[in-house]
Amino acid sequence: MNIGILGLGLIGGSLGLDLRSQGHYVLGVSRRESTCHRAVALGCVDEASVDMNLLAVAEVVFICTPLAHIMPTFEQLIAHLPFTTVVTDVGSVKAPIVKEISPLWNNFIGGHPMAGRTDSGIEAAIPNLFFQKPYVLTPVATTPIRAITVVEEIVRQLGATIYNSSPEEHDRAVSWISHLPVMVSASLIAACISETEPNVLPLAQKLASTGFRDTSRVGGGNPELGVMMARYNRSYLLRSLLHYRHNLDEFINLIEQEDWVALQEKLELNQQERPRFTGQLPEL
Amino acid sequence: MNIGILGLGLIGGSLGLDLRSQGHYVLGVSRRESTCHRAVALGCVDEASVDMNLLAVAEVVFICTPLAHIMPTFEQLIAHLPFTTVVTDVGSVKAPIVKEISPLWNNFIGGHPMAGRTDSGIEAAIPNLFFQKPYVLTPVATTPIRAITVVEEIVRQLGATIYNSSPEEHDRAVSWISHLPVMVSASLIAACISETEPNVLPLAQKLASTGFRDTSRVGGGNPELGVMMARYNRSYLLRSLLHYRHNLDEFINLIEQEDWVALQEKLELNQQERPRFTGQLPEL
Repeated sequence: MNIGILGLGLIGGSLGLDLRSQGHYVLGVSRRESTCHRAVALGCVDEASVDMNLLAVAEVVFICTPLAHIMPTFEQLIAHLPFTTVVTDVGSVKAPIVKEISPLWNNFIGGHPMAGRTDSGIEAAIPNLFFQKPYVLTPVATTPIRAITVVEEIVRQLGATIYNSSPEEHDRAVSWISHLPVMVSASLIAACISETEPNVLPLAQKLASTGFRDTSRVGGGNPELGVMMARYNRSYLLRSLLHYRHNLDEFINLIEQEDWVALQEKLELNQQERPRFTGQLPEL
Repeated sequence: MNIGILGLGLIGGSLGLDLRSQGHYVLGVSRRESTCHRAVALGCVDEASVDMNLLAVAEVVFICTPLAHIMPTFEQLIAHLPFTTVVTDVGSVKAPIVKEISPLWNNFIGGHPMAGRTDSGIEAAIPNLFFQKPYVLTPVATTPIRAITVVEEIVRQLGATIYNSSPEEHDRAVSWISHLPVMVSASLIAACISETEPNVLPLAQKLASTGFRDTSRVGGGNPELGVMMARYNRSYLLRSLLHYRHNLDEFINLIEQEDWVALQEKLELNQQERPRFTGQLPEL
């Protein structure tokens, strides 16, 4: 099959490596000439160009640009495609994208591979990035069966675990387990550096160990990524943040009231339920 | 030197292994006969007993019981000791312990080795547990120089990095980097499991990845430990929690107001400052 990849970074490049190894013919488009050369040299694509017209012969196109570029890129892209081309994207927020693209392109299905890594760019591309990772597809009522089937089959070949959900359920779920942790963790760092007692902050920095390191990791990560999550998943993230604040207040109240029995019970429930999120226990 | 260890768990047992390898004669006391036998068999102590009188010949005694048992244990212990014996403890909160013990025992100096591990008990004891780890000592104005010198010398032999602070500064510092992260992380789990939409929680559990795993780790840990931190460091922890809530509200407000420039700046400051806590940049 001829498969197009628009945006040759970590995700686009890694996707190309896997698709080529399965015998597909992969056409890549990047805004930069130098990225096109590297993508071919690294074996991520068979051909690459800065001209979107290269994708006119693709049967399926994966849009793998950063979230903020998906819509503007898509609008340029469709001028080059026959109506039959199936288009999908890999953006980490789905409802706003699906809402905007669906009326413009019938053969579209939103997707989100959960395969992030710290490194980015075509040089970070690796084989089997998606193997045994969740890959969410978000078809809607108007999505043609053929578009769903074609994309599902390709994703299955990557070895990913496919989950189907509505765009809204996807965004609400990732607001809990991906976007909320970033803001929770960011607030931790911001609070610690607000300490003004001159001896305490340096001592805290010296004594910080794995507990602080893990809890603060995603809050000290890529700022652009954090802003993008907040922009594109704003309403579900705010909803999760308000629920979070309510739960935080409950912990604060229990400690203020010295209700150690109730605090113990809440921490026991946490200890029991966390493994359902980390694959150590079945989900409910 | 004859050194006594009261409480033969991970910390007491590991301490004994190192002290014996440096040629000290180590006397261990545990409440359980079976633990005494294991401690001798594992080479953690030279002699062990359930009778505190064994420690009468020790020049220095380390109290290595859980936090809640330090005071009651200490009160029994001193009936067996000559006034010259130097006593120290390894509790993770210092102000309440130092405040209670200092008037009762002149030769006391509080200590806190930052060398926690997930495993506990004598079977988890390992050599070099304290090597290149922070070890805080909290002498006060009335602590005799000799008591400070003796304990410092032993801690130095463990290869630990010694920090001196007041008990209060210690407790305030650990409230930020050790106790606050537990409650922040616990509130995250509690908030996520409060989701009531039937499709969303199972999907969130399936999609949760390293971001959720790291941010939720300490909040899903040992409930007794969490309660103990809150009980013994209650006022500093509450102070840190209120600062944290203030910072959380700032993030919520920026997202509500769609002030992406200010959000980006805050996340950039986090990215810049976090390495000062993780040893990748010098502290301020």
